[in-house]
Amino acid sequence: MPDTTVSDHPAERRAEDDGWRIRRTEADAGRLGETESIFALSNGWLGWRGNLDEGEPYGMPGSYLNGFHERRELSYPEDGYAFPQLSDTVISAPNAALIRLWVDGEPLDVRTGTLHHHERVLDLRAGLVERHTEWTSPGGHRVRVRSTRLVSLAHHPVAAVRWEVEALDGPVDVRVCSDLVANQRVPERSDDPRAATVLDEPLVAEYRRSDGPDGVLVHRTGRSGQRVAVAVAHLVEAPDTTATDTGCQGDRFRLALSGPLRPGQRLRLTKFAAYECTRTDIVDHPAEAADRSAGDPGGTGAERPTDLAARAVAAATEARSVGWDALVAEQRAWLDAAWTTADVVLDGDPELQQATRFALFHLIQAGRAEGDRTIPAKGLTGNGYDGHVLWDTEGYVLPVLTYVAPAMARSALRWRHAHLPEARERAAELRLPGASFPWRTIGGRECSGYWPAGTAGLHVNADVADAVLRYVAATGDEEFLVDAGLEMLVETARLWHGFGHWSDTGSYHLRGVTGPDEYTALVDDNVFTNLMARRNLRGAADAADAHPEVAARFGVDAAEVAAWRAAADAMHLPYDPKRGVHQQSAGFTDLPEWDFDGTDADDYPLLLHFPYLELYRKQVVKQADLVLAMLRSPGDFTADEKARNFAYYEARTVRDSSLSSPGQAVLAAEVGHLDLAYDHFAESVLQDLEDLGDKTSDGLHLAALAGAWIALVQGFGGLRDDRGELCFVPRLPRRLTRLAFSLLWRGQRLRVTITPDEVRYDLPGAGPDVGLDLWHDGERVRVTGGTSCVRPLPTPPDPGPEPPAPPGRRPTRRATA
Amino acid sequence: MPDTTVSDHPAERRAEDDGWRIRRTEADAGRLGETESIFALSNGWLGWRGNLDEGEPYGMPGSYLNGFHERRELSYPEDGYAFPQLSDTVISAPNAALIRLWVDGEPLDVRTGTLHHHERVLDLRAGLVERHTEWTSPGGHRVRVRSTRLVSLAHHPVAAVRWEVEALDGPVDVRVCSDLVANQRVPERSDDPRAATVLDEPLVAEYRRSDGPDGVLVHRTGRSGQRVAVAVAHLVEAPDTTATDTGCQGDRFRLALSGPLRPGQRLRLTKFAAYECTRTDIVDHPAEAADRSAGDPGGTGAERPTDLAARAVAAATEARSVGWDALVAEQRAWLDAAWTTADVVLDGDPELQQATRFALFHLIQAGRAEGDRTIPAKGLTGNGYDGHVLWDTEGYVLPVLTYVAPAMARSALRWRHAHLPEARERAAELRLPGASFPWRTIGGRECSGYWPAGTAGLHVNADVADAVLRYVAATGDEEFLVDAGLEMLVETARLWHGFGHWSDTGSYHLRGVTGPDEYTALVDDNVFTNLMARRNLRGAADAADAHPEVAARFGVDAAEVAAWRAAADAMHLPYDPKRGVHQQSAGFTDLPEWDFDGTDADDYPLLLHFPYLELYRKQVVKQADLVLAMLRSPGDFTADEKARNFAYYEARTVRDSSLSSPGQAVLAAEVGHLDLAYDHFAESVLQDLEDLGDKTSDGLHLAALAGAWIALVQGFGGLRDDRGELCFVPRLPRRLTRLAFSLLWRGQRLRVTITPDEVRYDLPGAGPDVGLDLWHDGERVRVTGGTSCVRPLPTPPDPGPEPPAPPGRRPTRRATA
Repeated sequence: MPDTTVSDHPAERRAEDDGWRIRRTEADAGRLGETESIFALSNGWLGWRGNLDEGEPYGMPGSYLNGFHERRELSYPEDGYAFPQLSDTVISAPNAALIRLWVDGEPLDVRTGTLHHHERVLDLRAGLVERHTEWTSPGGHRVRVRSTRLVSLAHHPVAAVRWEVEALDGPVDVRVCSDLVANQRVPERSDDPRAATVLDEPLVAEYRRSDGPDGVLVHRTGRSGQRVAVAVAHLVEAPDTTATDTGCQGDRFRLALSGPLRPGQRLRLTKFAAYECTRTDIVDHPAEAADRSAGDPGGTGAERPTDLAARAVAAATEARSVGWDALVAEQRAWLDAAWTTADVVLDGDPELQQATRFALFHLIQAGRAEGDRTIPAKGLTGNGYDGHVLWDTEGYVLPVLTYVAPAMARSALRWRHAHLPEARERAAELRLPGASFPWRTIGGRECSGYWPAGTAGLHVNADVADAVLRYVAATGDEEFLVDAGLEMLVETARLWHGFGHWSDTGSYHLRGVTGPDEYTALVDDNVFTNLMARRNLRGAADAADAHPEVAARFGVDAAEVAAWRAAADAMHLPYDPKRGVHQQSAGFTDLPEWDFDGTDADDYPLLLHFPYLELYRKQVVKQADLVLAMLRSPGDFTADEKARNFAYYEARTVRDSSLSSPGQAVLAAEVGHLDLAYDHFAESVLQDLEDLGDKTSDGLHLAALAGAWIALVQGFGGLRDDRGELCFVPRLPRRLTRLAFSLLWRGQRLRVTITPDEVRYDLPGAGPDVGLDLWHDGERVRVTGGTSCVRPLPTPPDPGPEPPAPPGRRPTRRATA
Repeated sequence: MPDTTVSDHPAERRAEDDGWRIRRTEADAGRLGETESIFALSNGWLGWRGNLDEGEPYGMPGSYLNGFHERRELSYPEDGYAFPQLSDTVISAPNAALIRLWVDGEPLDVRTGTLHHHERVLDLRAGLVERHTEWTSPGGHRVRVRSTRLVSLAHHPVAAVRWEVEALDGPVDVRVCSDLVANQRVPERSDDPRAATVLDEPLVAEYRRSDGPDGVLVHRTGRSGQRVAVAVAHLVEAPDTTATDTGCQGDRFRLALSGPLRPGQRLRLTKFAAYECTRTDIVDHPAEAADRSAGDPGGTGAERPTDLAARAVAAATEARSVGWDALVAEQRAWLDAAWTTADVVLDGDPELQQATRFALFHLIQAGRAEGDRTIPAKGLTGNGYDGHVLWDTEGYVLPVLTYVAPAMARSALRWRHAHLPEARERAAELRLPGASFPWRTIGGRECSGYWPAGTAGLHVNADVADAVLRYVAATGDEEFLVDAGLEMLVETARLWHGFGHWSDTGSYHLRGVTGPDEYTALVDDNVFTNLMARRNLRGAADAADAHPEVAARFGVDAAEVAAWRAAADAMHLPYDPKRGVHQQSAGFTDLPEWDFDGTDADDYPLLLHFPYLELYRKQVVKQADLVLAMLRSPGDFTADEKARNFAYYEARTVRDSSLSSPGQAVLAAEVGHLDLAYDHFAESVLQDLEDLGDKTSDGLHLAALAGAWIALVQGFGGLRDDRGELCFVPRLPRRLTRLAFSLLWRGQRLRVTITPDEVRYDLPGAGPDVGLDLWHDGERVRVTGGTSCVRPLPTPPDPGPEPPAPPGRRPTRRATA
């Protein structure tokens, strides 16, 4: 019985290449929720949390499909106009990952008996999670269980598990149940306002069928009008004495195997699962869905239960025909290709090298979508934030994917475009022109239940526009611009133009918005928002001028374009001349200072210990805001202003959001505080591996993980892309001897290698007829295929002493540790 | 069978004295909810809505006890620190007002059969609601039903009904059921955010007993730990052929009478009800109540069900012994005494004369409390605002009661004082020193579910302090100041001092608050709030200086007093020199203007048609705010500033709140726009009689009704009391030939009579040894008993043309109609 994927003991491989493997052992058995998120596998369409094969114990069971959700009522103690009345909530699709074991009648449960070994490994190159457990049951029978799990990056509907049990010390009777279960019980969530809400038994059974070792279940959601079919096909390798029993009951299909195992004898099961779902690769229009009767939940065009079931069965049996080994090989091949561009090499810090690859692995598996799909804030790794998509996607994730996997960025932007109808409806509801994209959503409608930190965060629209402009600049994808991008630029520009107003003195203002910093809400002239809106207005104007016939289809004329440009040119940026710093928003630097000395370490995160009444009116910053503005719009600040602004806001930023560190890292690097930049980078990249926010159990922080790349490539690489050109001003943190990364620009892969003395630019694999223009430290440079372009590493400015953070809130020192 | 209270037909009395009677006839039968509020009777402790005797149809059944409430969970789509998790909700006590009639088996129901007459009259001098109905049943039997109802102003627990039916055309069989019912079904409320929430079957039966024609029910609330006993005692005058049946079942006690009536024969029932309740005349501490087990819901010190029942039965039978005629006479005597001070005479406008008396009647019956009780925003006339107490009480109602019934003001202020513990807890929760009184409450804890228009409305604390200072100035009640007032002043001053901060330039600021105008929230330096806080700080400092030994008990020392004074002296008042007006809050006049021309008439009230996102950032004012500041703190504005400010804000105030008109009326009168002032007064006084806000069905707007007095006495009377002295600058609107009112000052009753030529000040009933100092139009005047002090009516300033209101939002013209 050959075992091609799991060596006899993971310890043998430990030294081999830990830079590509994430390990957790029995010592981590108590941190279930956290490891479930870390070991989550996904292909952007289907996500399996890293739950134990046997299902229990768990932190939170989860198997998610992109866009598959239920809808629930929101209630407000004091309701208000345009407060969303329904919210989308991610729910688990039926769980096909379960394989339960009984040893002489006792269930395998790592909390009972004796756990000799318990190790799980996420292989970032293979795209597999391997598990190895040696356990003696309470009755004294020792077994070894090994499993390998994949969610296929090559075949969208498919996931698979290879699982085996071996008797070790003596003969045992085993019973193995491979389950497919819907409506698995999920625990209640905490009272923390950031945690998500769950629904009990959200799925209604519509169809079930078993056929020998294979089975299929079809369910539908109660209100959101979606239908899901999950099929499993099995391959059993077991002693002849093994009895088999299969069947469906209620919300479950089960294949049960039972019989004796002699010492050394194994029972192996390979399980191929396929998920199919209506209305996830087509646009979900909630209004239509809500109108559907329970009798015809799929509505017009949705597949019938039996048809959907047939499609899932076909995919599962096809996967079995392809075979486990081929699935594993395809997985590796897909990842090899992806890593070619995505990998970032950090010589000198193996721990953060590994963490960086972990971050990028989750980013690219989350982005691996076909059709018009986006990436929720937690990917498909947990149900935090109710599974919602937030500005994290356009603000953090797409700036990475645009350069390492542009097709993924396009897919996410097309998803936004597909939801323009809901965004237009929302704008009309808000009594504004154009389109207003939701702060939080799954199906496209606004689901935010606290408007000062939701609806008022209008910058999400400019973040979308910014992502469009960046994508088009990096790829030259004019087809996308004409098909979708321009319309999004136009409608968001209209929103800003309808929202802003002219002052008596001829400046343009955006009042009453909330910027990225959620500790300061409903402010006037938030610099980040104003600069992003300016970029949005100008980007729309440029695109309309470049494609006047397309713009005309949306009713854009020269007068409208001129009005956008005039507003953009006059956009007000509040500045405090006395302190020599920009004001995050009008009057910010006049607000009372936060009493940091009087704030206990236990008082963080502040939002759990202080009312908004206190937070909003004081100079305390949850997350980079003005600092992020300097990253997005670097040309609007002088070097001196950047240094002063950075120091001013660093001293007031408590980083109660994982979105904060990336921007701080980049600006710290730019102004020359390289140690501090490195420490911010480390906080971002370790957000989940070290569970820094104590929230990893709800799912991974994809924006923070993307932030690791942003910190490395925009921070140390010094990449700036606001002018539609590639500009680098590299720095090398002292912990590293080499930093190397790649990015795609107009179809070319540019490789950048930074060492203590020089910066090397290459176009790997390109011939001498291929060239790429970029800026290196202010110098125009042309990189040609076949030849390295080498420049000296620029000397960073001497920034003076490191600016203090609020007491106790500096990131952990790693650069100098 | 004599009938001493109801003449044979109300029409006979119509011409007699309509200035004291409110009538509604069959034409109003469809406006049930509205008339139930208008005909509500109360004695401050018990309130009966004007439901029909037979119970159905109804808008909203209601019998309320002051402070009697249930508690319910609040849930937030996105929760936040210090968001209240429980809310108090008024619930109906058992209803003893019901008397149902069947005529030959068919129930009296004004929606069926033929309604020949249907008239109800509220007699404002008698304190009675009389009803007269002539009806022919669907089966063709004509009857006359007459009833008179009172809630005793002399005997707190007591209410009574005299009811009779008479056969008119031919013999009929009648069945009369006098019911006492708990957990009466109430309709679901609308989705309007301003409407209240109700609870189904909130009362748990604990005890019931019937004894001949008398009965008693005892119930408790599920969570708030309150117990209520209601007893009824009957007097029956019926033909000998009448059969009687009584008994308790479930939540009901019933006395049933049945038998034949010959034409002209009557059956009369007099029903005496008494309500007793635990924990309403003692302070309700919710924390304690919440800890109580269901098994001992009354907790330590609460009366047992049987004891409470005995008390109610004793009160009801005592009332029967006193007798109906005596109750009616006492009611009249109490009101005669109250009207001596409270009445305001308006010669020249009979309609608004009547409306003014209606307003004052409801004010004094709502304020008629013994013990430390306050007055909810709707009194005991409906369950709007969940029965909550808001700043309406100290901001609008107490400024009236202080002068016409100071004991009522004291009772309400003592209620606030009794809830200082909860206010201190709330301040601590908000991480602030001192005490923070709730925005909305019944039991003392914050129940506001939308903090930008709740918790952020910190001015409620200064409103309480202002009411304390006014009460002490008007009454000289030093005992109250020492016992309760000083502590409230100190704790609220501490709140302000902990909340405010000094700028670099030495001015003092209160940032991030919401003033009276709820269309502009979370603003800096709201002038109203800053001026009220200044008054609070100075008032606390003065009181502490006057009573240093008392202040020392609360830890006040000279340094703290000096700090209060310094903050008060430096309080910043934003002013726009370019426009020559004060800014309602910092930067207000720089905000975009509201597009009034683009706003449809149907778009009002704006909060139901526009998001806060639009409302908050524009120059649109829901209710007088800066204008109210000029009323409260007139010395901080020059006459020119008042005129300019009034005109500026008049053009931007949409009056979507019934709290708006009173302040607008007063300032309009001051700056000389007397017609406009009169029209604002009319809007305030007719708020409920004409149901101007379409909300009267939820209960009366007591603040608007108080606003009628404010408009008359502060507006046309020109009373200003901010200096602790009586100052008048009278005006007479052209519709009136005489305006006369009284107010109590240090125990003396001052009568002010304004006619076109002169102003007459008297001390009715006082001897020549009694004098009272006041200011008349800037002249120091001493009024002496026995002699009228006569001065010429000051000439108002020429204000120029009337400032425009937003299109379509000027109050209806009545001054010139």
